[in-house]
Order: sequence, then C-alpha cells, then structure tokens
Amino acid sequence: MSDYVNMNTLKFLVKDVFDAKKLCELKRFSDYDMDSFEILMDSNKSFSDKYLKPFQKEMDQNPAHYKDGKIIVHPSVEKVMRSAGENGSIGATFDYDDGGMQLPHLIHQANGHIAGCANNGAIGYPGLTEGAANLIVTFGTDNLKKKFIPKMLNGDWGGTMCLTEPQAGSSLSDIVTSASKLNDGSFSIKGDKIFISGGDHEYCENFIHLVLARIEGAPKGTKGISLFAVPKNNFNSEKITESNNVTTIADFQKLGEKGFCTTHLAFGEKGISKGWLVGEKNKGLSHMFQMMNGARIDVGMKGASLSTSAYLSSLEYAMNRPQGRRIKGSGNKDIQENQALITEHPDVRRMLLFQESISEGALSLVLQCSLYHDLSNASDDDVSKEKYHNLLELLTPIAKTFPAEKGLESISNGLQVLGGYGFCTDYDLEQYYRDIRIMSIYEGTTGIQSLDLMGRKIVMKNGAAMKLLIEEFKDTIESAIAYDELKPYAEHFKTNSKELGDVIMKLLEYALKGDHERYISDATIFMEYMSNIVVAWQWLKMATVAKTSLVTGNNNYSKEFFEKKIHTMKFYFKYELSRTSGIKNILLHPESLTIIEKEKKVFI
Amino acid sequence: MSDYVNMNTLKFLVKDVFDAKKLCELKRFSDYDMDSFEILMDSNKSFSDKYLKPFQKEMDQNPAHYKDGKIIVHPSVEKVMRSAGENGSIGATFDYDDGGMQLPHLIHQANGHIAGCANNGAIGYPGLTEGAANLIVTFGTDNLKKKFIPKMLNGDWGGTMCLTEPQAGSSLSDIVTSASKLNDGSFSIKGDKIFISGGDHEYCENFIHLVLARIEGAPKGTKGISLFAVPKNNFNSEKITESNNVTTIADFQKLGEKGFCTTHLAFGEKGISKGWLVGEKNKGLSHMFQMMNGARIDVGMKGASLSTSAYLSSLEYAMNRPQGRRIKGSGNKDIQENQALITEHPDVRRMLLFQESISEGALSLVLQCSLYHDLSNASDDDVSKEKYHNLLELLTPIAKTFPAEKGLESISNGLQVLGGYGFCTDYDLEQYYRDIRIMSIYEGTTGIQSLDLMGRKIVMKNGAAMKLLIEEFKDTIESAIAYDELKPYAEHFKTNSKELGDVIMKLLEYALKGDHERYISDATIFMEYMSNIVVAWQWLKMATVAKTSLVTGNNNYSKEFFEKKIHTMKFYFKYELSRTSGIKNILLHPESLTIIEKEKKVFI
Repeated sequence: MSDYVNMNTLKFLVKDVFDAKKLCELKRFSDYDMDSFEILMDSNKSFSDKYLKPFQKEMDQNPAHYKDGKIIVHPSVEKVMRSAGENGSIGATFDYDDGGMQLPHLIHQANGHIAGCANNGAIGYPGLTEGAANLIVTFGTDNLKKKFIPKMLNGDWGGTMCLTEPQAGSSLSDIVTSASKLNDGSFSIKGDKIFISGGDHEYCENFIHLVLARIEGAPKGTKGISLFAVPKNNFNSEKITESNNVTTIADFQKLGEKGFCTTHLAFGEKGISKGWLVGEKNKGLSHMFQMMNGARIDVGMKGASLSTSAYLSSLEYAMNRPQGRRIKGSGNKDIQENQALITEHPDVRRMLLFQESISEGALSLVLQCSLYHDLSNASDDDVSKEKYHNLLELLTPIAKTFPAEKGLESISNGLQVLGGYGFCTDYDLEQYYRDIRIMSIYEGTTGIQSLDLMGRKIVMKNGAAMKLLIEEFKDTIESAIAYDELKPYAEHFKTNSKELGDVIMKLLEYALKGDHERYISDATIFMEYMSNIVVAWQWLKMATVAKTSLVTGNNNYSKEFFEKKIHTMKFYFKYELSRTSGIKNILLHPESLTIIEKEKKVFI
Repeated sequence: MSDYVNMNTLKFLVKDVFDAKKLCELKRFSDYDMDSFEILMDSNKSFSDKYLKPFQKEMDQNPAHYKDGKIIVHPSVEKVMRSAGENGSIGATFDYDDGGMQLPHLIHQANGHIAGCANNGAIGYPGLTEGAANLIVTFGTDNLKKKFIPKMLNGDWGGTMCLTEPQAGSSLSDIVTSASKLNDGSFSIKGDKIFISGGDHEYCENFIHLVLARIEGAPKGTKGISLFAVPKNNFNSEKITESNNVTTIADFQKLGEKGFCTTHLAFGEKGISKGWLVGEKNKGLSHMFQMMNGARIDVGMKGASLSTSAYLSSLEYAMNRPQGRRIKGSGNKDIQENQALITEHPDVRRMLLFQESISEGALSLVLQCSLYHDLSNASDDDVSKEKYHNLLELLTPIAKTFPAEKGLESISNGLQVLGGYGFCTDYDLEQYYRDIRIMSIYEGTTGIQSLDLMGRKIVMKNGAAMKLLIEEFKDTIESAIAYDELKPYAEHFKTNSKELGDVIMKLLEYALKGDHERYISDATIFMEYMSNIVVAWQWLKMATVAKTSLVTGNNNYSKEFFEKKIHTMKFYFKYELSRTSGIKNILLHPESLTIIEKEKKVFI
C-alpha cells in the first residue's frame, strides 16, 4: 500500500505554519499540548491504515444502494461509526459539557484529512452525524440535547441534514415541507427531501434528521423556514419503540462517492413523523447556515484530501515507471541509454508539481480556516473573536471551492501522469477523478459559493473582512520579504493583492450604480481570481516558514523537505499566480454577455 | 429524446463557413454536389437516431468485457459494423479504385460528428477498421490490398492498430515485438500489445491487426520498426481456415468509453502468428504516423462530439428547470414571483455559453483540418497541395488536443448546470464526463501532442507552416474588420496573433542556444496558449460568415441563429481569449522549475 497521506507535510502545517501549540495557551484548549495533538494524529493514521484505506476501492466497486425500502452499505460502515463513537471523534470539538473533547478544529480537521485521504466516502457517515449533533447542541434546548446527543456522539445513531427538495434545488426559499404543531409541543413533519447523504443504513439503530420545514402560516421565502430534529424511529429511555414514519423511498446512483449513500426520504407519508423544533421558529435557515459553514470547510477538506491521495498515488507510479529518455542539448535522444523514469520528463514533473501545489495549497487554506475557527471561538477577547470570525466567514466559500475546482484539475493531471493506465479501474486515479466531482456541488455549488463571496462576504460590514485579509497578507509579505530568496515572490504577491483590491473597487461600481445583477454576473470568475491569490498567500506563508526553518536549523524535517516547499511555492507563482492577469481581463471586461435581455432569446 | 447534435450548426459550418460546394470543383470530388452531401448527412442522422443514440447509455451500463478468451460487446456492434459496410462509410474517403467513394474528409467527418454525438463508443469499431484499411491501401502491395481490403470495407472483418507495449508506453522506440521471416515471404510475429481498442468481438469473423514490430537484426530505436498486417485467423479465398494464434488474453476495464472494448493481445504465443509486411522495412513508424494523423483528427472529433451532445443535454435541462429568481436592481429577489428558469441566471448562462463556445469552436477546428486534408489531397497543383498539407500538419496536434482538454472542462461545466442531478447516473452528463477523459490520452497524450507541436510542427521547414497559418489569420482578420461590429474583435485577435509570433521567437532562443529541453519544457502550456488563439480564429471566421449572412440576407437559418454565433464569438473572446495574457506570462517566465537537476531530488 503506497502512502496515501503526507504526514510530514500535515505536521509541518499544523505545528510550524499554524503553530498549534499556541492554541494551547487559550483556556478552552489548555488541557492539550503539542504532544497530545501528535498522538491523536498518529493514532488516527493507524486506524485509517487498518480500517479505512483497505475499503476505499471496495466501497466504490460495491455502491451503497436501495433495496426493499432499505439502503445497503458496505459493512465497514459499522466499524467506522462504532470507532468514531468510541474514540470521541464525532463530538471532538464540542464542549466538555456537551460530551465533547474541546479539541481544536485545527487538529480535528487534520485528523479528518488523514481519514479523508484514506477513504473519502466512509467518513461522511460520522461527519454528518457530527454536523447534525452540532446543530442540536448549538440551538436545541437542554431537553433536546439530553434526548439525542449521547446516542449520536457514541455512534449508535446517525445524523443527517435535510435541505433539498425536488422542486427547489439550491433555492431554499422555495421549500414546501410542512410542520404542524401537535398537542405535545412537537410538530408533524410532511414532505420529501432529496440528495440526503448518509440518510439510512442498517448499522445505526436510529437516525436524527435535521429538517428544514415551514410551520403552517409562516411567511413565504427564507423568513418562514424552521429547523426540526426528526428521528427515524421513536424511542423511550430504554429502547426504540416504533417507526416515526420516515421512509426511505429511493436512492441516487452516482458518478462517484459511491460508498456514501445518497437517499430520497419521505416524511409523514405513511403516518405522522414527529419532529422537534430546534432553535427559534422561522430562524431555521440561519441556524442551518451556521452549521453549513462548518460543512463547507469539511467539503473543502475532502477535496484537499482526495487531491492529496491522488498526488501521492501519481507520484508513486511516476517514480517507478521508466519510459522514454530525457531530451538533452540539441534535442537528440540517445536510445542506447536505459529508459528514464518518467519523473525526469519536464512535462511529468510539471503535472506532479501542479498536483502538489494545488493539494497542499488547498490543505493549507482549509487548515487556515480551521485555525480562524478556533480563534473565533476561543480567543480571550471579543475583538479578536470578531476579527477571526470575519476572516473565517470571508474565506469559507473559497476554502470550499478551491479544493473542489482546482482539485479536480489536479486529479485529472494525476490521471494523465499514468497515461492509459490512469483511465483503467486497476488504478486509483479514475476513482478520485469521479469522487472529487461532487465537491463543486455539495453544500452549495461553486456558483452559490461565488455569489456568497461577492454578494455577502466581500461587502459585509463595509468590507471589514476584506480589510482584515489584506492585513493578513501584509504580515506574510513582511515576513517573506526579509529573505533575499523570497523577496521577488513577496513583491509579486504584493502586486497581486493590490490588484485584487482594485478589481473589487472597480466591480463595486456596478453595485453602487444599482446594477447588482451585473455586479455578481461574473462571481464565479471572481472566485477563480481571488482564490488563486489567496492560495498564493498560503504558499508564501509556507515558503517563509520553510526558509526560516532552513536558516534556524529546524531539524524536524530534512533540508530537502524545506527546499521542496520553497520550490513548490515558486512553481505555484509561475504556473498559477501568473494566470491572474488573464482572469483579471475577464473581470474588467466592459461587455455584459451573460445577462438575459428579454428581447433576445440567446439560447435558440 | 432530446436532440444530441445541432444539425443547423453543422450544416452552417460545412456549407457556409467551409464552403463544401467549392470542393466539388476539384476533379476528385466532381461526382458530388452540395445536395448529395446534405442527403448523406441527413441519412446519417436518421441512422444515428435509430441505431446509435438508443444504445449509448446501455453500452455504458453493460461494459464490453473479457470472458473465457473472448471479448463480449453490446449486440448493437453487429448492426453498426454491418451498416458501415453496407453504406460504404468505412472506405468513404478511399479512392474509387480501392473500393472507396472519394467522399471529402470534410463530409466524412461531419458524418462522424453526427454519429459521435449519438454514440461515441460504438463508432470506434468501424473507425479503427477504416484506419487499418487505410494503412494497407496506402502502403500495401496490390496483393495485400486484394487479400484484406474488400472484407474490411464491407464490415465483415474488423481492423485495429497495435502500437503500445507494456514496457514502452508512449516511447515507441522501445517496443520489442519481433518479426522473423518465414519461407513464404511472410513473417512470424511474436509479442504482447496492450490498450488495443476494438481488438476482438464476436460480430466480425476476422480481424486484421496492424502491428508495429522489429524484424530480427533491425537497428535499435524508431529506425528499426516495421509495420505488419496480422490477421486473427488465417483464410483462403473461400473462408476462414484456422486460427493465426492471435490470442486475446485480457481486457482493460475503464473509467469511460465502456462500450468500446480495450484489449490485451498476444501474438505468436500459442503457435506462429503470420504477418505480412506493409510498406517498407524499417519504415513502419513513419507509415503508421501518416495514419495516426488521421486518427488524431478523429479523436479531436470525438471530443468535439461529446462536448456537443453534453452541451445540448445541459441546455435542454436548463431550459426546463425553474429554480430561484433573477437578481435585479439593488440585489433583492421577489419571492412572490414564480421561480425563474435557470437559463435566466447569469452564471448558468455563462456555463452554457462556455459549453457552446468550446464545443462549436472545437468542431469548427476539426472541420477546418478536414478541409485542409481534402485540399492537400485533391488540389490541382502541387504548391497548393504542399500548402494545405503543411497547415494540416501544424494544426493536427491542436485539433486533437483542444477538443479533449477544453471539452472536458466544458462537459464538467455542463454537469454543473444540472447541479446534484448532474452527478447522478439518471442523466447523461456523468457519462460524457467519464467518456471524454480518454481523449487526452488516445493516440498520443496531450504531452506528446504538445511536443509534436513545438518540437516538430512549429519549426518544420523553417517555420513554413507557421507562416502559412499567419496568412490564414490575416485573411480572416481582413474579412472581419470590414464590419463595424466585428472590428474590435478582429483587432483583439490581431494583437493576439502577433503576440503568438513573438512568444515563439522568444522561446526559440532556448533552442538556438542548444537548450532543447528548456525549449520544450512548457510545451503543454504552449499548446494551451496557441490552441486558445487558433480557436479564436475559428470563432472570428464563424462570426464573419454569420455577419455576412445577416447583411446579405441568407435565409438558410434564422436571424437569431446568426446573431447567436456572433454573440458566442464575443463570449469566447471575453472569457477565453482574455486568458492568453496570463498563459503568456507563464511561457515567458524566466525560471526553469520542471527540469531535473541531478543534485536536487525534488520529489522527496
């Protein structure tokens, strides 16, 4: 088994770049130290070696599927849920009071990375359970917590998020699932929910579905949506008593992530499905969104993980595959020579470096967000909390989108490294290529993330978050510029970050003129532009820490390790950051070509 | 069944942009007129409706596979081979004397487009038979032609190309399959060939494999490779007599193109496999390459066809899918309104226009090459023949690569238009996303094509082909610039084409200094750059013909049809051509980051 995760790079990020030790100075995390973080990561790796990685292909080849009203999943799902319950990882980041471990998100995500590199599909089951439990913990009454949380955290019960309905898709204002109050204070929930990941299987005795629905008489649109916890089965303190009439009526067969079931659930069709209001009436969507932000970071990590394991897989192939000969001097090849390893061919090196620059850039960005998450939760003062919260909000759509979009490109390059073999099911790459494609769709498509970035995050609080990000950029530039080797890159980045500000100001003119549709019409292109720059920032940061390590003689990793990080930064700057000037041209282009004009039917 | 091919656009290209009628003035094509071309295309469409499109999904869901020494394929393969034989399409472009129809490649490729949009996998079977027959017709003796060709052209026998071997991959200099002369003048062929498309199935009674092998004692490397025709079964004038010991020992299960079998063949393992030398001894590779150029154009067309049917599929979905509401004025949505069709959202329009601009740009480029092919074959004078041959040679790697690489991106956008549904096997998009991935690998990977473009085609005959292309660009610019509406685009393109020349001159400095490895190290990026500009040329050409049609009142298509072509050209220029300035930055970047330095082990 080739290694599927780069533990050195992960630890370098956690320890050296994001300085996890410093988190332990905060009260919330004061029971931890760096050693305990490392022990957790290492034990996670051992678990993944044994129970996750070996089933990755098997789960793909034996897709979860619907049969006679049930969903059949791979048997390893039992072990995954059971262990996640036993080792506390479902509620790892929760408060002690809620049965959690108060682990920093930074470490929790690092663990998620290891597991996600090993088996991206399997970890969705505990992942969604965590998300659902988190909603109850955050917004539910003590009574609800007592009712649901212990069984969810110990892995006996699964959890899901039920948002999408057939007629509404991404447009949550249009959901129609209804909730009518019953005498005991609970609600009768009625409606269909589709694309429910991890919605049902035999290895959890119960599921708690977190469902968006409208209480009868609620206002139209997003302001009339409430959040409910709806168990699959009713229960008393001792055991499951009877069905709560949540029925699994179909599944979705998919391009990838085949081991992770996707279901169609019907509530209240065969009898009453009782649900309990979570949080405030009509505030369901904003409650859900608080959780959704976490889920978006998780999707970002899944993209980063798939890209990473794809990179390592391509690399291993390339380092063992002789083919052709180097082109030297005036272009002649010497066929008397033995064949060269394909890692000697510049084009193969380019593809591998591209994979590395994208997968590690993505990983770094997701961990950056996790650190901000921790600092926004646990900082000592409110000003800091607010600051890191703003940064987290701004970067979340980017951390969700970059690993998905560029990760796909990077995996496709990885498949290409293997040539014809990459297209064959004997190798892993084709699975990664299929699996990652959902990451641009899960938890809000790239289009939706881009609208969020431009329409909300850039402009929120008068651009406060953007200003903070520019400050963060400046800190990194200052540290980098001190080294002669890094100076040109720091300056290149400085130019780019200034241009980013200019582009935003220019685009805002449309919004200020009241033409909001034009302002957001190229949001996805803006996302491509800004995320390219944000990841350059991460690379400059990594290269600076690597350089400092070389200078100060940090012995945790080899000299080559640090040099490689600097090299890959240079690669990213040449091959990726250079592209921004073209993308900027699109954004500043005066023509509007995608806005419908009623008199022109452009698609006939 | 939604329409899978845009017959209007195809006819616009064939008739109006590439003026197929003019070909009929050449002696070779003088039996044809535009009406007969149209009849052929229409009857091809009817056939595809009935016999190709209906099995597209079925062939994917029931992959061709190896069982007990045989390859099992979908039963519709029989009908496909049979009909291709009956309607003459296998040898359509061959000389009358060789049993062909002397049909222009332009029309043959247009027919291939229709069939490829309907069922990309199925058409591989007659397609490879055509390629193999073409090699025999071009280089074989009369005796060989008589022996093999009639049965191949009537579809009774299949044909394949056997190049790749496990240890050699793309490096054909390293193939080891051997040929030793037998007393009757034939050769005994011995060796393994992998990735043989269409290599075996029960619906052809025989297969003629075109095999690269080394005659004993031949020089090492590419200069010692010869080409052989090796039948699966021996035969006499009446019937198949006995096995020729070509055995199918395995298949490859793949990400996509699952209906089109990929096999592992062993020659001479169980007894003598007799083969006949085709063409000159030790000239096998150059013979094969003549054919390969045609195969590369075919792959380009497959990419263009998949992108086209994906576009039409996304478009149909989008035009029937209500979701959300337009963002108007200051950004508020009116939830009292009915949901809008998603074609009203700028981001969805952007994705659809992207799909259209890529798929039609790719189609146009492939047809352009087919026209050059015809003119290089059938022009009246040698100067013209040479001119069009050079243009064809130069554009072939681009016509192979652009539809594959950008087609993948376009299909991925198409999948995104459907959101979660796009990821589900109930819709076509996920199949297209899988199928197109092979096009960057088939018949020489993108890396190989890019080396060919920069290392051979750009520099051949002292840049002669490049000069001709610049002349072609100039003609298009001149026609476009005459229209006020098109003038800015013509000028934009002029700047780009000038920059292309500058970039080439700059890069050639490396080669002139003797550093060939550096010269070709970013060949794939150069391919991305140049193909972007070449397709912009195609769009400018299409827009100019559309504009002329509007001005002169061409009634073959609607006013909206022509306006849409101009609109999509503008889209391509804004959203794609604008990117070249970023790509140029990469090419002109002074750092070398992908060339191995022996002292640095960059991949540890």
